[in-house]
Amino acid sequence: MSKFLVIGERIHVISPEIKEALATRNAAPIIERAKTQLEAGADYIDVNIGPAERDGVDIMKWIVPELQAATDNAPLVLDTVNQNAIRAGLEVYNPVNGRAIVNSADAGDRLSNIDLAAEFGCIVIGLLMKKGVPRDNEERDEYLQTMLEHAMEAGMDPAEDVFFDPLTLVIKGMQEKQQEFLDFIRTMSEMGLKSTCGLSNASNGMPKHVRPIVDNVLCAMSIGAGLTSAILNPLDKELMNTIKTSEIILNHTLYADSYLDI
Amino acid sequence: MSKFLVIGERIHVISPEIKEALATRNAAPIIERAKTQLEAGADYIDVNIGPAERDGVDIMKWIVPELQAATDNAPLVLDTVNQNAIRAGLEVYNPVNGRAIVNSADAGDRLSNIDLAAEFGCIVIGLLMKKGVPRDNEERDEYLQTMLEHAMEAGMDPAEDVFFDPLTLVIKGMQEKQQEFLDFIRTMSEMGLKSTCGLSNASNGMPKHVRPIVDNVLCAMSIGAGLTSAILNPLDKELMNTIKTSEIILNHTLYADSYLDI
Repeated sequence: MSKFLVIGERIHVISPEIKEALATRNAAPIIERAKTQLEAGADYIDVNIGPAERDGVDIMKWIVPELQAATDNAPLVLDTVNQNAIRAGLEVYNPVNGRAIVNSADAGDRLSNIDLAAEFGCIVIGLLMKKGVPRDNEERDEYLQTMLEHAMEAGMDPAEDVFFDPLTLVIKGMQEKQQEFLDFIRTMSEMGLKSTCGLSNASNGMPKHVRPIVDNVLCAMSIGAGLTSAILNPLDKELMNTIKTSEIILNHTLYADSYLDI
Repeated sequence: MSKFLVIGERIHVISPEIKEALATRNAAPIIERAKTQLEAGADYIDVNIGPAERDGVDIMKWIVPELQAATDNAPLVLDTVNQNAIRAGLEVYNPVNGRAIVNSADAGDRLSNIDLAAEFGCIVIGLLMKKGVPRDNEERDEYLQTMLEHAMEAGMDPAEDVFFDPLTLVIKGMQEKQQEFLDFIRTMSEMGLKSTCGLSNASNGMPKHVRPIVDNVLCAMSIGAGLTSAILNPLDKELMNTIKTSEIILNHTLYADSYLDI
């Protein structure tokens, strides 16, 4: 069993600081967030530049080498709906410490991001959705099959080259859909597929003191069901401890009394 | 899906205070521990009087009515290897708020505790062991079948009247056996069987600051796999929050912003 992959989510255009840094091509605060996440244990750094319709290509051409130069070529997740921007990023990406991840394809309009990832020999996140979020596991399975076939036709190894995202649904409002979410992670795990998701979306709208408790429990349950990676805030020490502990219980890493500090 | 049952573990002869109270027939500290556990959310109170070979019958005859009188007939788990003592406790037990639970039968010498429970129409905890702890899930399954058959022959409904305990194993030393433990909980859940276990045993021997993290993660994973009850310390608020949150995620209780305080 391979190690659970932590994808750091803190370089995101939704942050005003990052938004301004991207707009003014000021790499320093972006590099800073990459470094702190790597120090906290992130395996990959997600670089979400937003839709970036106008200048996405320029931004990726600039930020990917800047980030990699400053972080000894940390592995990156290129995150935007602008496919040309992702291509531009892949062209300048150095895979020495890990293949790039394209974020993301889906079973609808963004199916061709699978081809893009195949062209560059990298990994792609496949969202199990088409227009909206999946209504049930029948829909998830339909989208999974669509992307599996497409990936195989493109020459990919679907067990290694695609991380399928079952899509976390907000508990407050879709409480009755969480069991299905966990069941689908298990289904994918039993199929030998890798998976990822944005775990903390599930606790959206809950009181501030409740959210971390929900995040930790859902994280443990998801890893128990077979989740192999997640997009999250690696500075959340409690959540990182939950991940490390899950890895110990499932025997993916060897126990030592100091395992939380490693 | 029925609510997860919390069995409070704090009345245990291993505690010097409880040991002395049992020996001197001083009910007050025992009643106090029952009350605080019930206030903290325990559904059942385990009453572990130890082997009690000499005076187990007397102790149970005395403590069961004392406890029930002081707690508006709280449901109890009668916990000793002395079968006569359990019988004596069952004879004076008031089931108005929940059937008594016999703790415990196993697939070996204590198989006849199933008959005792059947005779009194109560619940029995069936440890999936014979001489020692189960080596693997093949052994767990063998012991499960033995107890299932015995319970059915005794006229019990094995889906309602037996809580099967897969036996928590210490992670430090048996790290590679935890996945099997979780798998067996899932197997039992899929068979429609109820389950219980002493969760915190798994973290025995770990550093003090690590144990609660391990307890919480294993608890979430176990409930995610289908565990329906556990014997634990209900005064551990973090663990109780994990249980409540697991119940929310699995849609066993309805979400409200205040669910942790309910």
